[in-house]
Amino acid sequence: MPTPYDEMWEKLNLDLAAHEGLLQVLGKFYGDIYLSQSGRLKGIEYLDFALSEVHGLRIQELQEAKAQGRKVVGTFCVFVPEELVLAADAIQVGLCAGAEIGKEAAEKILPRNTCALIKSFVGFKIARLCPYLESCDLVVGETTCDGKKKAYEIFADYVPLYVMEIPQMKQACDRDLWKAEILRFKEEIERITGKSITAPRLKEAIRLVNARREVLQRLNRLRVAAPAPISGRDVLLINQISFYDDPVRFTAKIGELCDELEERIKAGQGVAPADTPRLMLSGCPMAVPNWKLPFLVESSGAVIVGEESCIGSRNTRDLVDESGETLEAMLDAIADRYLRIDCACFTPNPERLEHIVAMARDLRADGVIHYGLSFCQPYAIEAFKVEKALKDAGVPMLSIETDYSMEDVEQLKTRVEAFVEMLH
Amino acid sequence: MPTPYDEMWEKLNLDLAAHEGLLQVLGKFYGDIYLSQSGRLKGIEYLDFALSEVHGLRIQELQEAKAQGRKVVGTFCVFVPEELVLAADAIQVGLCAGAEIGKEAAEKILPRNTCALIKSFVGFKIARLCPYLESCDLVVGETTCDGKKKAYEIFADYVPLYVMEIPQMKQACDRDLWKAEILRFKEEIERITGKSITAPRLKEAIRLVNARREVLQRLNRLRVAAPAPISGRDVLLINQISFYDDPVRFTAKIGELCDELEERIKAGQGVAPADTPRLMLSGCPMAVPNWKLPFLVESSGAVIVGEESCIGSRNTRDLVDESGETLEAMLDAIADRYLRIDCACFTPNPERLEHIVAMARDLRADGVIHYGLSFCQPYAIEAFKVEKALKDAGVPMLSIETDYSMEDVEQLKTRVEAFVEMLH
Repeated sequence: MPTPYDEMWEKLNLDLAAHEGLLQVLGKFYGDIYLSQSGRLKGIEYLDFALSEVHGLRIQELQEAKAQGRKVVGTFCVFVPEELVLAADAIQVGLCAGAEIGKEAAEKILPRNTCALIKSFVGFKIARLCPYLESCDLVVGETTCDGKKKAYEIFADYVPLYVMEIPQMKQACDRDLWKAEILRFKEEIERITGKSITAPRLKEAIRLVNARREVLQRLNRLRVAAPAPISGRDVLLINQISFYDDPVRFTAKIGELCDELEERIKAGQGVAPADTPRLMLSGCPMAVPNWKLPFLVESSGAVIVGEESCIGSRNTRDLVDESGETLEAMLDAIADRYLRIDCACFTPNPERLEHIVAMARDLRADGVIHYGLSFCQPYAIEAFKVEKALKDAGVPMLSIETDYSMEDVEQLKTRVEAFVEMLH
Repeated sequence: MPTPYDEMWEKLNLDLAAHEGLLQVLGKFYGDIYLSQSGRLKGIEYLDFALSEVHGLRIQELQEAKAQGRKVVGTFCVFVPEELVLAADAIQVGLCAGAEIGKEAAEKILPRNTCALIKSFVGFKIARLCPYLESCDLVVGETTCDGKKKAYEIFADYVPLYVMEIPQMKQACDRDLWKAEILRFKEEIERITGKSITAPRLKEAIRLVNARREVLQRLNRLRVAAPAPISGRDVLLINQISFYDDPVRFTAKIGELCDELEERIKAGQGVAPADTPRLMLSGCPMAVPNWKLPFLVESSGAVIVGEESCIGSRNTRDLVDESGETLEAMLDAIADRYLRIDCACFTPNPERLEHIVAMARDLRADGVIHYGLSFCQPYAIEAFKVEKALKDAGVPMLSIETDYSMEDVEQLKTRVEAFVEMLH
């Protein structure tokens, strides 16, 4: 079926036939998982629209911006400081991928024992199916895990790649290394954009990204309400869209959604009965369109009230301190903020255990599902510590390890249902 | 069967019955793989002795040293600077483990998808079967891979653990971090030993460790000869023993062995006919008693002439510069030397590709077998780059991924035999 975007996609060198097939599958999938929900908020229409135009209108916006000389920077990780990208008038988009695309092709250049997220972004590239990747002037990797760190070396043959080094501890020497990496990244962004990052521009960018974090924090606070006023699926989608949507528009729209949520809470309304078991997800990121586990959970008689994940609270918990006036002070504030991230790449990482226990308590969660992507060793090993911390706090945990295939759905459903049953 | 060491093992809280079983299996295994070889060197008797006393005499020496106030430091990785340990009059021993011991117990506290080496050292601890671990006053981990980095957090509940951070790149900021880590380690060693590391002591330690590296470099150079004058199995064993034996004695003994090798080379003698395909191993470390692949290779009509591995040339290639006279200069020389290591933990890691190609050429290898431990992502992904570099150099490569079990031996043998056949 012809669309107004065919010419654009062709210019981006997408595999048009395969891409049409992908959009059809995505549409069907979205209908089954999202549009089938009852009692959704009016503000959700924006999400439906944003997702339906994920490869259309938003890509067109990127192309228009590029035509005006703006650059597009793609990322895979919440460690890349978007403030610097925005301060150079460039646009940052998340490239983490959540579909089993190009798997066979990816497995020719990477081991099969590689996590689904990595195989997916490599597969999307080889299969020529991601218009975001094809729009990027720079793709930014980072050394958060062995899989990504080493896969980027191979991916560098396919995209204009730059890699940031993330320290593995949080000592003074790590802060020094990280500050040096922030400065190196600033120079690279200035190089590709041809623009200087000035104090006023950076201050504005810090405010802008903080505002998006604040509205997502507000959304998460509203989920303390019982009955749960919004589904976990919808909040996951909001978080996913936050990585590629225009940040100003997105923040305004989610603000309106929060207003509507407050009304709903005042009226005592929710998406599930008040006695529905409340679950929190914790662990690996779920990139678009990886809605498999949330759908399973919310089809098993539970409702999700929090996401302890990079595509969730790990990305929105901390703000950059806004008090700095000089470029140097702002760069320090950025370095400090990003080094507070409680990623499992750090050793030790006690902050994450504290955050999980506090989130479960604050959100009145009845249980936690720890989500690990197969072959993601940092989260798989840390799950043993998470389980112990939650046990000590009296919160039951179910540990799930899976990938993007649908082969294990029935088996997972059985396990999730048994866990939910136990919480009643 | 009672031994003179029973009382010592009991004091070390080993599981005596299980330990006796382990030694029996090890002895049988050693007989089949090592003693069955024909035409071995006279100097090999020292290795046979050292291995037969691996849990006996050497442990007794450690206990006697401890009784005199010396400390024992255990390590898992070639990044830990032994010079500092020796300069504080302590003893360093390698703890990497190469047997499938305590696997079930280890899999209760770690994911099953963890590499065999990690499961082995954790398993040895839980099963109370490693007298080295039980002799340690300090166990030093490091952040070379996700598996070890995160497993140490759990292992810290079982042993007195200290973790060094290894940088992931080789920029100026990485050198700064690494220098800070060297200084932190120096302080920790001084703390546990109660001794100051002085310039004269450190100079002597640098000389001592360099001498061991030099004798192993000499051994490796002698293997250029055709016919191959020594089996790969024997050289692997030499490298393995280098991690726990007294360094002065070891260096002297291997020097004598090299003298004998030179005679043999002069006489045109070797361990296999001159037209035997010469193979090089490359990749993950093979810890005692992991002799599975070398035995397979050398039972398949090939001879091994080099080990591009941590338990091999990666540990002996570079010397510490000996020209420094001040403590500061020596610490800098140590930092520089260890940061030259071409471990797959670095990104990018082009030096390793260059080293592999140069080694294959210098050793006149007909082919390379890349050895990866299952779930070791850094080496598994880098293997794709190694294969390409070798292909460009005209050297065939076989990629093997395995663990410590014997289940895949027949399958591996078929693959190795086909590879060797192809080289004829």
